[in-house]
Amino acid sequence: MSNIDILVSEVGPRDGLQSIKSIMPLEAKKAWIAAEAAAGVREIEVGSFVPAKILPQLADTAEVVAFARTIPGLQVAVLVPNAKGAEAALKSGAHKLTLPLSVSETHSLKNLRRTHDQVIEEAKAIVAMIRELPEDQRPHFEGSLSTAFGCTLEGPIPDAQIARLAGRLIEAGCDEVGLSDTTGYADPRAVKHLTRLVRGVVGDDKLTGIHLHNTRGVGLANVLAALDVGLTTVDSSLGGLGGCPFAPGASGNIVTEDLVFMLEAMGLKTGIDIEKLVACRTILKEALPGEELYGFIPDAGVPLGFKPASA
Amino acid sequence: MSNIDILVSEVGPRDGLQSIKSIMPLEAKKAWIAAEAAAGVREIEVGSFVPAKILPQLADTAEVVAFARTIPGLQVAVLVPNAKGAEAALKSGAHKLTLPLSVSETHSLKNLRRTHDQVIEEAKAIVAMIRELPEDQRPHFEGSLSTAFGCTLEGPIPDAQIARLAGRLIEAGCDEVGLSDTTGYADPRAVKHLTRLVRGVVGDDKLTGIHLHNTRGVGLANVLAALDVGLTTVDSSLGGLGGCPFAPGASGNIVTEDLVFMLEAMGLKTGIDIEKLVACRTILKEALPGEELYGFIPDAGVPLGFKPASA
Repeated sequence: MSNIDILVSEVGPRDGLQSIKSIMPLEAKKAWIAAEAAAGVREIEVGSFVPAKILPQLADTAEVVAFARTIPGLQVAVLVPNAKGAEAALKSGAHKLTLPLSVSETHSLKNLRRTHDQVIEEAKAIVAMIRELPEDQRPHFEGSLSTAFGCTLEGPIPDAQIARLAGRLIEAGCDEVGLSDTTGYADPRAVKHLTRLVRGVVGDDKLTGIHLHNTRGVGLANVLAALDVGLTTVDSSLGGLGGCPFAPGASGNIVTEDLVFMLEAMGLKTGIDIEKLVACRTILKEALPGEELYGFIPDAGVPLGFKPASA
Repeated sequence: MSNIDILVSEVGPRDGLQSIKSIMPLEAKKAWIAAEAAAGVREIEVGSFVPAKILPQLADTAEVVAFARTIPGLQVAVLVPNAKGAEAALKSGAHKLTLPLSVSETHSLKNLRRTHDQVIEEAKAIVAMIRELPEDQRPHFEGSLSTAFGCTLEGPIPDAQIARLAGRLIEAGCDEVGLSDTTGYADPRAVKHLTRLVRGVVGDDKLTGIHLHNTRGVGLANVLAALDVGLTTVDSSLGGLGGCPFAPGASGNIVTEDLVFMLEAMGLKTGIDIEKLVACRTILKEALPGEELYGFIPDAGVPLGFKPASA
């Protein structure tokens, strides 16, 4: 983060690809990741260590990680649904592991087939595995509070429940927690409220990132709210690819291209070159014919006389 | 504004219709305006008093105003390009007149075929006509600073030029100035900056509204920035219909449905019922077959357990 203000964490190769039917060939994934890294993206969630029968789209995650690790300066992140997935992730040498914990227990049972207590046990088991590694080889381990802004099955989740689960993740040994609007329910007031609530429990340094969807069009307004309360890492997906296949109607990560435009226009350095970023879409279009890509900047272009902060 | 926090000003019947080729029949315009008013919309810009040969889509504005004035509690707004248009507007009995002044003189010459000095002279002539009316019949008169966030022909416009023109509009007798992102160039930082700049010249009470486009996907983030600096009126267009036909690539007002969702989710009362608002789209779809409508809320619906502020 030394020379950037906001870390844009690209999650398309994981959250994007898991939500579509097409399977992207390994070579295209490599090309995509390399191109985004070359555009200046510093962190990419490249896959998820889930059984191939559940998400065949991500069956090659270990190979993707192996490739991504060869790119200098790139933080290689993966999702792990449980300790078994974490074991594979550790073996792969990923730099960052994220374990989702649905604050809605109904969603947790549907998505991970585990109760809250069971997910916390998985977190503890993952921490134990990580601590067996030499200190300089330990990945960053995040517990992500998914459905934090409400659940398509349960509706709003009580503050106390979210706060308690955030605390339990840190107690279990997570380095950090994250807020995740899995369902696209967030609004700017809720983003500020939940950030303050969770930071009050875990400390400011243990909540720095947010994962937002644009399901209801307010994704970038939610980013602005997140910036206002001091969050510094924002997940997004190239072309807005993605969503959660287990939360109906929850498709649509915020679009990396538009996010980077907004941040750079506001004077916040992302380190990312917008033109090179937009050019990465060609790889998606060729490898995923028929999949719809979103985003305004790719069509509209930047304003005449635009001066990005990172330039 | 007594029982609402934010005034959502629907501009679709003017800014939306002027930017599309189809001509909406008068009866459909009436149905649209009546339906939005019934959904709780308090202000609608129903047309523009421009020559029919330039914008045949708006040739029936006088009749639309006559109808809209019969709706109790509705503030009926119109655009006027010059004193001649204002004369017709005054005759129609519109409650609010907006004269656009492009802060980019190049755009002003293209859009209104007038220099800045000439537009200011028009403003003075309009004020003179208004002041001839009995006090209780005088409409509210706004000078709108269009291309305020940059021009597709000139690029960024210097602060000093914007500040000077805002001051001249107030000196000419406008009740208020407004900020207009005609080109979709705004970002949240610029919204805050320009609002403070112009308010510093004209006073807080003489700049309360903003007109934003979603050309680059950051429209609602820009609204959030506007709220942060105390603006209370936000223009938008049902289904995102519209844009400026004289600024290439500038299409796309922010979507009323999504705007109302964001505001109500944040606890800000608009007085508008989202379901009834979304239902108004049927009128557009039937009267404008082939025209694309935008918006996320109409597809995604509101979150489970959603509690709008106005309920």
